[in-house]
Amino acid sequence: MKHTKPIKLFLSDVDGCLTDGGLYYSAEGDELKRFCVYDGMGMVLLQQAGIPCGIITSEQLPIVVNRARKLGLAYLYAGVGCKIEKTTCLRFAPATAEPVEQPAITKRQAVETICDELHITMENVCYVGDDVNDLDLLEAVGHPYCPPTARPEVLAVPGIRVLKTPGGQGAIRELCDAILTELARNSDRDLIGS
Amino acid sequence: MKHTKPIKLFLSDVDGCLTDGGLYYSAEGDELKRFCVYDGMGMVLLQQAGIPCGIITSEQLPIVVNRARKLGLAYLYAGVGCKIEKTTCLRFAPATAEPVEQPAITKRQAVETICDELHITMENVCYVGDDVNDLDLLEAVGHPYCPPTARPEVLAVPGIRVLKTPGGQGAIRELCDAILTELARNSDRDLIGS
Amino acid sequence: MKHTKPIKLFLSDVDGCLTDGGLYYSAEGDELKRFCVYDGMGMVLLQQAGIPCGIITSEQLPIVVNRARKLGLAYLYAGVGCKIEKTTCLRFAPATAEPVEQPAITKRQAVETICDELHITMENVCYVGDDVNDLDLLEAVGHPYCPPTARPEVLAVPGIRVLKTPGGQGAIRELCDAILTELARNSDRDLIGS
Amino acid sequence: MKHTKPIKLFLSDVDGCLTDGGLYYSAEGDELKRFCVYDGMGMVLLQQAGIPCGIITSEQLPIVVNRARKLGLAYLYAGVGCKIEKTTCLRFAPATAEPVEQPAITKRQAVETICDELHITMENVCYVGDDVNDLDLLEAVGHPYCPPTARPEVLAVPGIRVLKTPGGQGAIRELCDAILTELARNSDRDLIGS
Repeated sequence: MKHTKPIKLFLSDVDGCLTDGGLYYSAEGDELKRFCVYDGMGMVLLQQAGIPCGIITSEQLPIVVNRARKLGLAYLYAGVGCKIEKTTCLRFAPATAEPVEQPAITKRQAVETICDELHITMENVCYVGDDVNDLDLLEAVGHPYCPPTARPEVLAVPGIRVLKTPGGQGAIRELCDAILTELARNSDRDLIGS
Repeated sequence: MKHTKPIKLFLSDVDGCLTDGGLYYSAEGDELKRFCVYDGMGMVLLQQAGIPCGIITSEQLPIVVNRARKLGLAYLYAGVGCKIEKTTCLRFAPATAEPVEQPAITKRQAVETICDELHITMENVCYVGDDVNDLDLLEAVGHPYCPPTARPEVLAVPGIRVLKTPGGQGAIRELCDAILTELARNSDRDLIGS
Repeated sequence: MKHTKPIKLFLSDVDGCLTDGGLYYSAEGDELKRFCVYDGMGMVLLQQAGIPCGIITSEQLPIVVNRARKLGLAYLYAGVGCKIEKTTCLRFAPATAEPVEQPAITKRQAVETICDELHITMENVCYVGDDVNDLDLLEAVGHPYCPPTARPEVLAVPGIRVLKTPGGQGAIRELCDAILTELARNSDRDLIGS
Repeated sequence: MKHTKPIKLFLSDVDGCLTDGGLYYSAEGDELKRFCVYDGMGMVLLQQAGIPCGIITSEQLPIVVNRARKLGLAYLYAGVGCKIEKTTCLRFAPATAEPVEQPAITKRQAVETICDELHITMENVCYVGDDVNDLDLLEAVGHPYCPPTARPEVLAVPGIRVLKTPGGQGAIRELCDAILTELARNSDRDLIGS
């Protein structure tokens, strides 16, 4: 059954989840992505509460590395389940460490690796995705979520929960806050013994 | 009659179709354009399904080249039907190849050239445009489309189909998904012989 | 009386009119502004129809110069009616020419200078402004306009016409199209002698 | 009681208040923030009316310094109440001066320091904040405000006033205009002796 095991790992896709899907191209081929300050604060608070956070993306751009490092995230996999061509995958654990290169793997394989290390199962994983290349992973985790702006195929994943906030406008924060509230409630229950 | 011949080539304008029409200027004269990750995935999926995709634009900026190369598009014509002055036209086929310069031609002439090479007719072409410099081409192709944010003259083209999604927010993906669905349906029909 | 003399000069403010008021700051102090492709096409079409266009702004940033040059505008005054401090004013006429420096003047003085050169009066001028530093000029021209996103003081200018399209999303194009339609109607009337 | 002492100092947070919370990351690790031209004009007008303005932020990015200097603000504290780690705090007073480094302090401590210098109390301070790291300061000042896009915890601060305009779209200008209107009204009252 879905949502019965507690969340012990929080992961998100980038484009469309941590951003609104916008890709800003310049004349020099650089690219900008627009993140949201509320999402960053949410993942910082979640990590302070003891839940490691990470980013799982098919992109290999330094942009994503910069963002993950600024937030001090526990995990970053870049180049996984690549949309266009098979490349190497870069793994940063924690995101502030130097990357380790490895042959390309799928998003699901990347998350299974983290689960093994943390001695948790896929049912303990919360993942936010929004496009067809997230379907395999969303169907495998215990806590699949997507923003309301996700593609139709994602909105139709069995058991998926649809956030209220659009991608890039605080969707991740909405979910982090909900998890933190749930954590606080369970912590209270433990204290009062009920 | 419109929409009777199958789509064998998918082409789009840039500003207002693959973007929301925003042009970001910097102090150094550079320019940014905001593309949408969903549109890129749509054209990648369409090409994987056997329909070559391309970009037809009056701009000559490296931005557009960068985007077309990232997606591995089959065609890119830059500087065609130029709004302001007659310049050369750059042709990239595929978009990852080195460009060939030629005297400026209209958007319609560029597409007719591709049709000749692919041994298809203009009735097999799907084109998305949004402004008055797209009118000539939109009136010539078998499958003319525009985003709902197009200029009034474009919305009034006979037989044009208006997408639901605004330019730069996934308008192209909406259309790619519809074409892919239609392709799958026809493929099923072929299999069951009806 | 307002709106009785024909428009012979089209001028616009930048921030909030040709943009949505957004100022993008980078670490290096550079700044980006987001223009709209539809507005650019509108001013190009208006100039082709014989009405010179220009930009009147308190900013002195190269961004504005780049944009005016790309469009081949007839006039650009930068640094006029400066918000913060008295600086020099840069005059480009046409916008592709080298600038001439002069002591700072108000926006109204800049436009009066252009009128003298063109042998027209302020009643022939169409100006789009959106903030309190545009009030003096808006009250002086024959055709004052503003986007619906203008400040309350501007929306309250006697005789001002409020556009439907927000600044930076095609407000200027809406007005250019209306002027072009009016020009075509008058031209028809001349031909049929009524 | 709240709102009984006149405002003698106007301060604002950056992300989500002077911006819409968007953080633009590039490949080089640079970051862009999108400010709003209306907010800038509002603070300029407020300072001209005799009320010093400033920015209080946990960020230490040159972006914020550039913006504060462009507007000629009286105060800038960067790196206060830092979200992620304890760093030094940079104080600029005025924002155009060279910064003074000091050990990290909270946002509230920074504002108390300014109050001492201006011989005013926290009840004379108007502060706009939007996230949980603003709660302590919002609860301490006499005039706490937030944009409607603030986090739920902020919207629930006792006595807080919620602005109508979203962050980054003129929320600060809305408040500056309201303060200026109140100032003008009180000035009239003084003149007519009632």
